[in-house]
Amino acid sequence: MIDNQTLASALRAFAAERDWDQFHTPKNLAASISVEAAELLELFQWSRGQKDWNEVHAPTIRPRIEEELADILLYVIRFADKAGIDLQQAAERKIALNAEKYPADLFRGSDRKYDDASS
Amino acid sequence: MIDNQTLASALRAFAAERDWDQFHTPKNLAASISVEAAELLELFQWSRGQKDWNEVHAPTIRPRIEEELADILLYVIRFADKAGIDLQQAAERKIALNAEKYPADLFRGSDRKYDDASS
Amino acid sequence: MIDNQTLASALRAFAAERDWDQFHTPKNLAASISVEAAELLELFQWSRGQKDWNEVHAPTIRPRIEEELADILLYVIRFADKAGIDLQQAAERKIALNAEKYPADLFRGSDRKYDDASS
Amino acid sequence: MIDNQTLASALRAFAAERDWDQFHTPKNLAASISVEAAELLELFQWSRGQKDWNEVHAPTIRPRIEEELADILLYVIRFADKAGIDLQQAAERKIALNAEKYPADLFRGSDRKYDDASS
Repeated sequence: MIDNQTLASALRAFAAERDWDQFHTPKNLAASISVEAAELLELFQWSRGQKDWNEVHAPTIRPRIEEELADILLYVIRFADKAGIDLQQAAERKIALNAEKYPADLFRGSDRKYDDASS
Repeated sequence: MIDNQTLASALRAFAAERDWDQFHTPKNLAASISVEAAELLELFQWSRGQKDWNEVHAPTIRPRIEEELADILLYVIRFADKAGIDLQQAAERKIALNAEKYPADLFRGSDRKYDDASS
Repeated sequence: MIDNQTLASALRAFAAERDWDQFHTPKNLAASISVEAAELLELFQWSRGQKDWNEVHAPTIRPRIEEELADILLYVIRFADKAGIDLQQAAERKIALNAEKYPADLFRGSDRKYDDASS
Repeated sequence: MIDNQTLASALRAFAAERDWDQFHTPKNLAASISVEAAELLELFQWSRGQKDWNEVHAPTIRPRIEEELADILLYVIRFADKAGIDLQQAAERKIALNAEKYPADLFRGSDRKYDDASS
């Protein structure tokens, strides 16, 4: 489980202690998720991770991956908390929606987008 | 709670059904997180969400925010599942690390980065 | 003027000297543009640059902005060179297309997207 | 050549006509570059463009690549114009700086980052 309520609480206290709520606007938190997402992407910018998941376990890279994933997750939890959004519910709904957009028999083995007539 | 184990299971089945594991490399999933993060950011590209959180509740925008947050979260869960990373643990560690990098007495009211001598 | 032909030449030599062409795939160069874009965005993650352009001239921040803009531009030029795309032509066409998507009389003072019925 | 002065002029007129300068803050233009960069990245999210540049020429994808590259370039030009930054000069300086950070004899065939002791 991810205990997002407790994590959200911790993040609220963290921001309050530092008088940082003034900076935590929707735009700034959305920007922060993008900034952290790019830091994760940077670990795979060139040759690393093009095919399989072996490389991810290397001790030189694994801690950095964990840290960037955590950064992204924390900002998502913070954003959802500020916005009053239920992440578990939103996630379940999105999986259901994706199943409708991508029926298995029509998209098996294909990486085209649901609205892409040509690939 | 976010039931990431069950969500990860659902995502595994979803990908297997569609023969999509071939596309789910570390690089591609990292890229996907960035793509979705930018779709959330796009909702706040101009005037929306610069200050407070009222606007986020408008019925014209709220469902879209929920959907993009869900997309980001699902790719993070999928990545962590493929990489064998414990997200709860990684999140707790990162909050602790952030407390060390940003002692409240030194960073109260300031938005400078921990390694930024000048703001 | 931006002398993109000469810059593209320099980038070709730079990559050849270092045997880096193997890493310069379409996907990797596209990822690189995103990585650099996020480094520019990070300079404006919190309070800086929310309103006017004064802050951009501060000597502590200006060189960093120049560097990130340059990084983005160089990857765009490198990508276009590898893809055989004429950037001047593409830019002119896009401005023309934007004028069609956003007629001034319909979008004056509005930040809604061209396909957005509700804002 | 990329005639960035003329393009910047066109973008200034475009924004003035639509009363959009109010939205063109440093933060918003930086966010826009990220949003467009991710739209380019999305074209290479899965199997396309992992190795060579052949696929880029396909008539179904080429126009979309041109459009996204143009979007990124136009926002970079707009940002630089608002910030009073000389893009040609910034680009030349960055290539020179990169040559110092990545001496060919030390980095030939390697994709490690300049500050990365371990890859």
